Amino acid sequence: MAPIEKVNLAEKLSRFQEYWSPKIVGEVNESHVKLVKLKGEFLWHHHEHEDELFLVLKGRMRIRLRDRDVSLEAGEFLVVPKGVEHLPVAKEEAHVLLLEPKSTVNTGNVRSERTVAEPGPL
Amino acid sequence: MAPIEKVNLAEKLSRFQEYWSPKIVGEVNESHVKLVKLKGEFLWHHHEHEDELFLVLKGRMRIRLRDRDVSLEAGEFLVVPKGVEHLPVAKEEAHVLLLEPKSTVNTGNVRSERTVAEPGPL
Repeated sequence: MAPIEKVNLAEKLSRFQEYWSPKIVGEVNESHVKLVKLKGEFLWHHHEHEDELFLVLKGRMRIRLRDRDVSLEAGEFLVVPKGVEHLPVAKEEAHVLLLEPKSTVNTGNVRSERTVAEPGPL
Repeated sequence: MAPIEKVNLAEKLSRFQEYWSPKIVGEVNESHVKLVKLKGEFLWHHHEHEDELFLVLKGRMRIRLRDRDVSLEAGEFLVVPKGVEHLPVAKEEAHVLLLEPKSTVNTGNVRSERTVAEPGPL
């Protein structure tokens, strides 16, 4: 069993700068808690079997769905259900907490140079 | 499928005041996202099968474990693994986001007048 240690989000966020590269900072049941920095546009994808939670910690982002956009500010979250196509976008740098099953790949059904197959722990 | 709607944590927190009564504000995979306001001392308990994540949004809290205490401030989280006895405490009012499987009962293995068997959605 991993040691029981608290996690300070700001401290973890200070340890990396690259965008679109989620870092694992905790695990709870079958899920990972990840932190990610976003800037610019990601790519359309969906996750066949996994819901994905986006909680904005700093800045703002948009999650484009096929029928509309959802704007999120700090203190707001959205759960994108499995199977739903989405495209995360952030005009300016945004810091986001993700919660998703350990099996989740960042680009979902799509493989591209932006795929991070096995994000390491911070 | 539930509609895909964002959740504003502050707005949800403004809708209730009672302490130690978690409210469901989202679901992601097999887990519920809950919000709870804490003040005072809860009771020692553990969850047989469920890890429980505590993310402090406002104020501060302490999670007492049998061998030590962990103090958490806003922006910090702790995952209490299944089976681990813990006692949440907050001297002053604290607002906390919980993430735990849908099966989780707030008092874990203990039944008391503080048990909220089936928290409703907000």
